[in-house]
This record gives sequence, C-alpha cells and structure tokens, in this order.
Amino acid sequence: MQFSSRLIEKAVDAFATLPGIGRKTALRLVLHLLKQEKVITGQFTSAVAAMRDGIKECSTCHNYSDNDECQICADPRRERAVVCVVEGVRDLMAIEDTSQYRGLYHILGGVISPIEGVGPGELNIDSLVQRAQKDEIKEVIMAISPTIEGETTIYYLTKKLQPLGIQITVIARGVAFGGDLEYADEVTLGRSIVARVPYESK
Amino acid sequence: MQFSSRLIEKAVDAFATLPGIGRKTALRLVLHLLKQEKVITGQFTSAVAAMRDGIKECSTCHNYSDNDECQICADPRRERAVVCVVEGVRDLMAIEDTSQYRGLYHILGGVISPIEGVGPGELNIDSLVQRAQKDEIKEVIMAISPTIEGETTIYYLTKKLQPLGIQITVIARGVAFGGDLEYADEVTLGRSIVARVPYESK
Repeated sequence: MQFSSRLIEKAVDAFATLPGIGRKTALRLVLHLLKQEKVITGQFTSAVAAMRDGIKECSTCHNYSDNDECQICADPRRERAVVCVVEGVRDLMAIEDTSQYRGLYHILGGVISPIEGVGPGELNIDSLVQRAQKDEIKEVIMAISPTIEGETTIYYLTKKLQPLGIQITVIARGVAFGGDLEYADEVTLGRSIVARVPYESK
Repeated sequence: MQFSSRLIEKAVDAFATLPGIGRKTALRLVLHLLKQEKVITGQFTSAVAAMRDGIKECSTCHNYSDNDECQICADPRRERAVVCVVEGVRDLMAIEDTSQYRGLYHILGGVISPIEGVGPGELNIDSLVQRAQKDEIKEVIMAISPTIEGETTIYYLTKKLQPLGIQITVIARGVAFGGDLEYADEVTLGRSIVARVPYESK
C-alpha cells in the first residue's frame, strides 16, 4: 500500500499494531477519522491515553481499577466470604455479565504452565493465600478454564488453601473441555457458577 | 457488558465509535493496550493525534497531504498533461497500487447525487476547471464508479471540460480479468459485448 502522506502512514501503522487489525482496516479507520471534525479524534486519543495512564490495579483482587480498590471490592453489597478465582479480567467481566454471582474475585494473571515458563511465582497466588489467612473467606470458587494448565493450577491452589479450612469449589463443568472460558455463552457460564460442586483432588 | 472501570469503559466507547468495531472488539483492543507498556499507548495516541492535527489538503488536487502540495503533485517525474479524476483518496491509492499510472490526480470528494443532496457545488469541480484552464492539461481520465451517479458526474464534467479542448477518457469497463464469465453481472456482460474491441495478439 502506497501512502502520499507520512502522517497517514504512521497512523495506519499505529492502528495496525492492534490485534486483528490489518493495514487495510487501519486505513479505513484513519480515513474515517479524517472525515470527522478534529475534535472527534481529540476525544478518541484522550480517552485512550487517559485509560492507559490512569488505570490502576486493585490492591486486593488485582482487577483493573480507577482507584486503589476496585468497584467490586469496594461494593458493600458484595458477599465477602466467597472469592471467585479467575485467570484474567475478561473472565471476571464474563461472569459479571451473567449477574449470577455476588461475591468477590481474585485475578491470577494466568495459569501455571511449565511449557510457557509460567510458574506459581509469576501469578497472584501469594496475595490470594494472604487474603485467605487475613479475611474471613469461607469458600474459594475456581472459575478457571478446564484445560490441563487450568487443572494443574486448581490442584496447586487447593493444596495451598485447603489447610486453611476453606471450602474449595469448581464451577460446574457445563463448560466444554479444552474451551476458553471467555467464549462460553452467558447461560452456560451462569449455570456453571450456580451449580458449582466441591472439588475433589485426584 | 459491565465494566468495573470508568476509564476502560470510556476507552471502549471511543474505539467502538470507529467503523466496523463493536464493543467486544473494542474491549479486546483496550485490554491489549493495557497489557503493553504505557509507552506503546503513548506512541499510538501520538501518531493518531499528529495525523489528524497535521494533515492538510493538497491545494492542487485535494489529496490528503503533509504539506500544502501533496507528494504526487510535487513529484517532477509525474506526467503533468494527464489528470485522473477520482471520487476519493481510497480510489487514488488503489490506482497508485497498480503502478500503471504516472500522471496527476484530482479528487472530487464524491459524485453528484440529487437523492443525497450532493450537487456540483459540493464537489471539487471548480478547482478542476481552473486547473484545466491554467495548466497544460491534455487529457482528463474519468476513474469514477460506473453507477448512475457516477455516469451523471462524468457527463457533467465532460460538458465543462470538453469546450477547453481537453480529451476526456473513461477507464475501461468490462468483465474483470481472471473472473469467470458466468459470474459477471448481466449489465457488465451485456455492455462488454456491445463495447467489444479488436483483438490484438501480443
């Protein structure tokens, strides 16, 4: 693709670094912005820059947050004795969208994967154990993708948390094995949380 | 979709204003940026803002440009006696990508469309006539979509330019190269039979 403007070329390159956006799509987005008033692009870049500069990590559950404590942890209506462990923010959002769960969350930041060099030390596991020791948590729900790495992570967490007298549950396996959690439909995902069962380590 | 962060929500809304980007895709882009270093988002927003703030319109051909005169008009190697009239910048870029054309361009900014309220006054027609009067233009190529509005526009431009002694040509219309004849639409196929040309073996 040939550009008669370096400014357009650089903006196209910038959009094309985003996942799923090729240079043809990037050009369409750039030409769209050029057709609008300048203030529209200003609003767009401001919102994106403010988001990246201002975003914090919740000191309790590691969720993305506008403050030191996220909206969910700060909400007095949430059940504080139940913590749902998820791999990432998208899983948290997927569960929130089902409106089936009123407890708190803990974001691991991934799963244990020796192949990809992710050990327990790379994940937010210590802070989960600390929460379990400090706060009055009675139940920890494992809402982790049912993959080999996910199962390993659940096993590891159970060994850490069960001695603290916490009940470990796993979301019901209505979710297809080998499937990514974020692609499950809302009904299946919601029912999986409601129909959670005690975890039995094999 | 529920967000635990207003900053993320605003950034998702911003991306979702772009054409072809829904809120799920927008969220994917935002979470991608959050995973990267802050400087990456800075580079992204700078490139987009610089593009929108810095872009100019070429005073000759109305192409997007970094300067008052675009790269094509400023290029001494381009043939200056031929001007190719296109509806928009994307058409210009599509023709440039073929590497088959070495003349100049003129961007109309659309086609005459009474239904959509676009008259000759809304398009860059006066400046084309001025170019034709002032510069040594011998040929104007109409590279305009063969629609009813396009044909009307070509007819209107021809009436304006022909009295100035300029040769008017239209890009060849017919069956696409490499395309199956049976899939060509009736109008195209019918017209390409009527407008058949002598075969020249190469």
